[in-house]
Amino acid sequence: MAAPGAGASGEDALIARYFKPLATDPGAFNLVDDAAILKASGEDIVVKTDAIVEGVHFLPDDPPDTIARKALRVNLSDLASKGATPAGFLLTLALRKADDSWLAPFARGLGEDAAHYGCPLLGGDTVSTPGPLMISIAAFGRVPSGKMVHRFGAQPGDRVVVTGTIGDATLGLDILKGGKAAAALADNAAARDMLVARYRVPQPRNALALAIRDHASASMDVSDGLAGDLTKLCSASGVSAVIDVPGIPLSAPAATLLARGAADIGTLISAGDDYEIVCAIPEDRFEGFARAAGAAGVAVTPIGTILAGTSAPKFLDAQGREVPLPRLSYSHF
Amino acid sequence: MAAPGAGASGEDALIARYFKPLATDPGAFNLVDDAAILKASGEDIVVKTDAIVEGVHFLPDDPPDTIARKALRVNLSDLASKGATPAGFLLTLALRKADDSWLAPFARGLGEDAAHYGCPLLGGDTVSTPGPLMISIAAFGRVPSGKMVHRFGAQPGDRVVVTGTIGDATLGLDILKGGKAAAALADNAAARDMLVARYRVPQPRNALALAIRDHASASMDVSDGLAGDLTKLCSASGVSAVIDVPGIPLSAPAATLLARGAADIGTLISAGDDYEIVCAIPEDRFEGFARAAGAAGVAVTPIGTILAGTSAPKFLDAQGREVPLPRLSYSHF
Repeated sequence: MAAPGAGASGEDALIARYFKPLATDPGAFNLVDDAAILKASGEDIVVKTDAIVEGVHFLPDDPPDTIARKALRVNLSDLASKGATPAGFLLTLALRKADDSWLAPFARGLGEDAAHYGCPLLGGDTVSTPGPLMISIAAFGRVPSGKMVHRFGAQPGDRVVVTGTIGDATLGLDILKGGKAAAALADNAAARDMLVARYRVPQPRNALALAIRDHASASMDVSDGLAGDLTKLCSASGVSAVIDVPGIPLSAPAATLLARGAADIGTLISAGDDYEIVCAIPEDRFEGFARAAGAAGVAVTPIGTILAGTSAPKFLDAQGREVPLPRLSYSHF
Repeated sequence: MAAPGAGASGEDALIARYFKPLATDPGAFNLVDDAAILKASGEDIVVKTDAIVEGVHFLPDDPPDTIARKALRVNLSDLASKGATPAGFLLTLALRKADDSWLAPFARGLGEDAAHYGCPLLGGDTVSTPGPLMISIAAFGRVPSGKMVHRFGAQPGDRVVVTGTIGDATLGLDILKGGKAAAALADNAAARDMLVARYRVPQPRNALALAIRDHASASMDVSDGLAGDLTKLCSASGVSAVIDVPGIPLSAPAATLLARGAADIGTLISAGDDYEIVCAIPEDRFEGFARAAGAAGVAVTPIGTILAGTSAPKFLDAQGREVPLPRLSYSHF
């Protein structure tokens, strides 16, 4: 991604018009170079890439600015869960055509999020494709040397904690597809809008990164379903867990849909796109963690306990029975 | 990209089987985490992303291992031109289906190049797409603080130098498409194969990175055509240039095709996919640069001179006339 001078092509002009304003970091060299620089003075650079594809991770009709925000935020969510501070990102944008009415709001949404989260555009590549739109972002963060929080590290006795609420995004997608949730909330536009917004625009918990770094023994973001992702965290840590399903935090619209029989809890905890954080907090750090989370304005809820053993975590209902899960987590293949 | 434990999906199994062996850097945590770490002790991290798309940057019939090599090498070429030492990369792979007979050679080619260039896989994302295959790589390099070589910095009087030979890749593509070059080299399978290999598998000049860093005032890789890319370098540097077109290095097959009238020099110097380096070397550094290039085993050829002014570089034939250029450089839009 390089802005044009003499010999500017359509691609160069597009980059200059829409993306150069986002390249606010001095290391981006105003996108007039072939590469950017990330300064590091002894910290570790945390690197992560996540892509979103039209028809898979977002819908063709989704507003361009929400597509941009989702593309960046799914990566910011990973940085948050690792305890890292955002430092910048690279963008790969595969488009069928360069359409100003799509690019202008896309770049505006991306720029607003880049500014809000302190994660400037460092460079990128725009390519043409006859296929679906695809946005791949590589995001970078900083942590003090050796302080990245891993999937591994959870210990028996740790509390299992999640941020925010679980299951909203899959309900939002169901509403966009005209599913059961849409009919069951026909009387409540605000609830429908809230769930749709949760699907389209994740709320990454970057405000919690420092508390995660200071207190969590293990952490990851919930992108492929709470049940599957916690299973991965436990597997990487060589532990098991027991989860009190009625204690899993739900939004009011999600609780309404459960009560109306238009959703089931097994689906909510195994569907994807939550972009919350699930982490393990040692018992003696929980109070400090909860205090730090409160100061950061992020709701955190203990939902269970890490156990010794290597069996998959158990998700138990109020009667202590295992909740049936339709699938453990999302897989592309 | 994370390798599986309990709850492994098809996607996880794919990653464990094909990509975990490439994650040789300790900062990749064997792909069992959500992010990787790049250590930096005071150096600058150079970051770059370039994507390749089926039908645009490679052909559907290209062998999977050459597609993988091209995806990595187009990024390595940028790192080389910036004077950076490869440090690792993130991979985004958009596939229609997980096909072992494609993935196995793809991963093998990628792994061989990652090892050869000292650029280990740090993480990635695999997504399904109904559209063309797409591989986006974000590559990272290291340079001593402040020592990245830029597009800007060329000064009047500097020599313009290119590595290797120019125009081979576009001729290779022409052969794959059954164009004029194929017919004109019907008698010479070795020449055809050489040109096709130049299209499919770029030869990034990473061996030259240190010499570039020590001697070049400005540098970039030639990916979108020598004429257009030099124009961009001059524009970024606020200078012009004059190029002696007969002095531009050509391979023997390219020279044969020119002689047989099956190619024209204007196309060769404005077509893309060379993945050579064009750089500006101050006159008093040229001897040292040439010596360092020789020691690195990279052919370098002076082809012209940087001039004061802001007009586009002039490409002159043996009679001092401007060579007609069909287009200045490749644009996706």
